[in-house]
Amino acid sequence: MIGRCERIDFAELAAVALVGPANIAYFSGFRATPFERLILLVITPNGELRLVAPALEEEAAHAAVDDTVRCHIWRDEVGPLDALREALAGVQGPIGVEFNHLTLERAALVRAAATSSELRDCSAIVRTARLRKLPEELALLQRACAIFDDALTQVAKEVEPGRSEADIAARCADAVRQHGGETRGFEPIVLTGPRSALPHGRSGATKLAQGDLLIVDFGASFEGYFSDSTRTFVVGQEPDERQRELLDVVRRAEKAGIDAARPGVEAREVDHAARAVIEDAGFGEYFVHRTGHGLGLEVHEPPWLTATNEQILDRDMIVTIEPGIYIPGYGGVRIEDDVRIDDPPQVLTQVPVFV
Amino acid sequence: MIGRCERIDFAELAAVALVGPANIAYFSGFRATPFERLILLVITPNGELRLVAPALEEEAAHAAVDDTVRCHIWRDEVGPLDALREALAGVQGPIGVEFNHLTLERAALVRAAATSSELRDCSAIVRTARLRKLPEELALLQRACAIFDDALTQVAKEVEPGRSEADIAARCADAVRQHGGETRGFEPIVLTGPRSALPHGRSGATKLAQGDLLIVDFGASFEGYFSDSTRTFVVGQEPDERQRELLDVVRRAEKAGIDAARPGVEAREVDHAARAVIEDAGFGEYFVHRTGHGLGLEVHEPPWLTATNEQILDRDMIVTIEPGIYIPGYGGVRIEDDVRIDDPPQVLTQVPVFV
Repeated sequence: MIGRCERIDFAELAAVALVGPANIAYFSGFRATPFERLILLVITPNGELRLVAPALEEEAAHAAVDDTVRCHIWRDEVGPLDALREALAGVQGPIGVEFNHLTLERAALVRAAATSSELRDCSAIVRTARLRKLPEELALLQRACAIFDDALTQVAKEVEPGRSEADIAARCADAVRQHGGETRGFEPIVLTGPRSALPHGRSGATKLAQGDLLIVDFGASFEGYFSDSTRTFVVGQEPDERQRELLDVVRRAEKAGIDAARPGVEAREVDHAARAVIEDAGFGEYFVHRTGHGLGLEVHEPPWLTATNEQILDRDMIVTIEPGIYIPGYGGVRIEDDVRIDDPPQVLTQVPVFV
Repeated sequence: MIGRCERIDFAELAAVALVGPANIAYFSGFRATPFERLILLVITPNGELRLVAPALEEEAAHAAVDDTVRCHIWRDEVGPLDALREALAGVQGPIGVEFNHLTLERAALVRAAATSSELRDCSAIVRTARLRKLPEELALLQRACAIFDDALTQVAKEVEPGRSEADIAARCADAVRQHGGETRGFEPIVLTGPRSALPHGRSGATKLAQGDLLIVDFGASFEGYFSDSTRTFVVGQEPDERQRELLDVVRRAEKAGIDAARPGVEAREVDHAARAVIEDAGFGEYFVHRTGHGLGLEVHEPPWLTATNEQILDRDMIVTIEPGIYIPGYGGVRIEDDVRIDDPPQVLTQVPVFV
């Protein structure tokens, strides 16, 4: 994993001290599920890795990391301060921490353990390091997408009147596991009828009814890497005229977004491309979220495909393209695929848009 | 929900600004799944609730909260600062924030939006407010525990050689959903053979083998409230002598812990009671974690049953009691139940310890 540390631009930092689970996984290989116990990875500019972990993660940590990672284990009775102090020994100067992950409480802990109390935000630095996926990451992402494809294909056969949202959501999770994926990370979002207008609603007891819209949004994780994709169905019959129009607009918007997702393009241009299609069709006010987000060790990570993000996209970044139209009280349509930025862009999720 | 705000001891705080999902759910009724978009709840001493939420949560937020909660919605193109400023309008004086949840980045955002830039830690205050469960919470917790009981009973029948850890884990999740629970919150921990010595390992392809130890640790969530319980099995046969000894010690330790979990007792006394049994049996070094943790809207929440926590337990707090022995290279045993602090203590999880 040491090679990955070379992607960090330390500049004046004496070290970085990371708590973001995906960052720890990326640089050390240790995929922990942190609850309230401190797990933190110190990386120094000369490539030393020191992992602070609670005793109950000791075996898992040793099993996950190679010999180049030194583990500093702490026990509940003692607390993490001493282990953190050891891991920061010799670090003289400003320490990079993730302002988007480190809580005020843990910032105080790092300050107490460090020689220098100066903390600087390194979140952009570590984000940048992880943006362009390595070949071994691309392989895992491709596998996560293939699991989605297989799972969705299976679930599509079960979309019929009378099934509940929660039931279909459970079938999505089952199917992911059957095809070798994990479902940790997010619960499938299955919403039908007027509830499909909730972009992030929670699947419930609502039953699928003939002719209703149905949004099915889920993903698989494989060795820590996520897919995240969405299909919209019409339950038990062909779409009616209004549904057909919405589906058509969203498909065209998605296609425009995908076509724009190339190296050298600003992230916002992808959003503009997709949004323009929806606006031109008169539904602009009903597209209430950004066009997509990056994908990798996190379900949501940079680059953000928002209306304003000027970040330049580069080859081997992975993004979702997921325009939608949500009409309150009526229902919603969203289509989402996972795309590798390239010229031409490569769509990783391959399952057809059924309707 | 306004009544719950009266549980907050504001002292000199002009308001609290909460980002912890469980805290937001507790005080506003809105159970969001926050990704990277800001969701924040301002509560003032006179009981005003103001919810800052992104546009894609707008409908869900309105559906979840009652008229007493004012929503301040922000859109991706604009960012959350203006909505946060509105929500903090009129707040003059120090603002309570959760040091254990608020990141450095969001602390800067709150400071930018507020009149006062003084942030004080209110995490203990809101934790305290949530400690003693209300009758309606106890009912939901009881239901979450009953779902675990039913699910575990079902899965116990499938413990047999040749099944994989991941397969049993999937069956646990299925069973939870079949019995009306959700699995959001944590993935079942199913570990067998020497891997059962990993207290928080990740279920994998390892197959169950005749005579091996098997730890099955999962929970259900019901309307946001969690159960969290563990049983240890011996695959396909009766325990051998060594397994029998470990199981017996852990069962006695658990019983001692449960017996100690009464109002007026310090949290550490519960840990001591359970730990003493394991130490007396000569396995002290292999009990590498605390005896338990609180349970409610979070899988892990106060009170923490550690060796040092002097917090006084009170009626209607809910805790797990979960002693374990983990022998590296050999395997582990853990038994965990959910307990309501009372005199006598009430064990909410009722499924028998099968072995």
